[in-house]
Amino acid sequence: MRARTATVKCNVNLTITVDGYSAGTDQTEDRPFGHDGGDGTGDRLHAWMFDTPEENRAEIEELAAPSAFIMGRNMFGPVRGDWDRPWNGWWGDDPPFHGPVFVLTHHAREPQPMRGGTTYHFVTDGIESALAQAREAAEGGDVGVLGGATTANQYLAAGLVDELRLHIVPFTLGAGTRLFDGVPPLRLEQLTSRAATGVTHVTYRVLP
Amino acid sequence: MRARTATVKCNVNLTITVDGYSAGTDQTEDRPFGHDGGDGTGDRLHAWMFDTPEENRAEIEELAAPSAFIMGRNMFGPVRGDWDRPWNGWWGDDPPFHGPVFVLTHHAREPQPMRGGTTYHFVTDGIESALAQAREAAEGGDVGVLGGATTANQYLAAGLVDELRLHIVPFTLGAGTRLFDGVPPLRLEQLTSRAATGVTHVTYRVLP
Repeated sequence: MRARTATVKCNVNLTITVDGYSAGTDQTEDRPFGHDGGDGTGDRLHAWMFDTPEENRAEIEELAAPSAFIMGRNMFGPVRGDWDRPWNGWWGDDPPFHGPVFVLTHHAREPQPMRGGTTYHFVTDGIESALAQAREAAEGGDVGVLGGATTANQYLAAGLVDELRLHIVPFTLGAGTRLFDGVPPLRLEQLTSRAATGVTHVTYRVLP
Repeated sequence: MRARTATVKCNVNLTITVDGYSAGTDQTEDRPFGHDGGDGTGDRLHAWMFDTPEENRAEIEELAAPSAFIMGRNMFGPVRGDWDRPWNGWWGDDPPFHGPVFVLTHHAREPQPMRGGTTYHFVTDGIESALAQAREAAEGGDVGVLGGATTANQYLAAGLVDELRLHIVPFTLGAGTRLFDGVPPLRLEQLTSRAATGVTHVTYRVLP
């Protein structure tokens, strides 16, 4: 372990509606974020990244800055149960992670290397193991928990999150996967808050 | 009616935790916002108003800017059922409203004039009646729905709100009275978003 390890952070980075949802109901392969209230042609939650990338450059870079990543299986893809059909994530052959990504699942699978430095690792023994593996793989860099809310909530509830980076978008869903559900009350410190067109970026430190 | 009436706005103005609560559970006279996770000596939700008034002057003035106000009975006080004991709000003899305040209740009561121009009116025939009365009393000015979340949700669900002014504070409660509960999905436009110490102020226009 390097000396820097003590200050390595585990950050949750998540886009949510103003009522706290990171995805709507009924995710499918054609609808990665479920029923998001949009017209079905795009990703309504993450429009801020794709419609106004220049304005949100800092937050987009920050999203990709960790040295290792963790995500839940629903964020990785629509396949449920056994890996009974080919699926290598929503992000094509050259995913934007460029590093190790630890996918929480109950179904074992060999690591899947992709182009550009991304390798998907499949972790079947729980969130703490995934974090330990991600920390080791990060080699002194930060670990980013990318979602969805169910995965973020597990890490928050276990007290394993240092910072919470939220991108709050201007609509409500009323149903779906919601940040903070089942998480005991948290004390936070607002570190930064910045407005862009159609999104508010807020970073909180999770206090002990 | 004045010509300005057509542009009179009904605004919800509410302080919420980052998980959407405007109050915790178990409101009492000594605990107007219920269990807010604080040490019981102060108002944790609204600390931004009292601890850093200079920094939040614009938002504090905006809160008092409407010409007439609406609030739910739980915001008005801890008395439930009949008005069986004296209660004239949490705000003393000279409340900060300086205008007519329409309190939603199931229990009729005569109007209660206070010092400084505030008069509490008690409305027993529902939210639309309260809004109509407030609009008339506002004489061309805006109407402010001040809370709590239960009242805000009723107005939002009925499509009666023009703008939503939220003050998002850095903690979660996990229980209590929650904004957007039971409200059908909303399309919003982020009008302004501003950070201050320990609070993010966001104003949304409610789209049709």
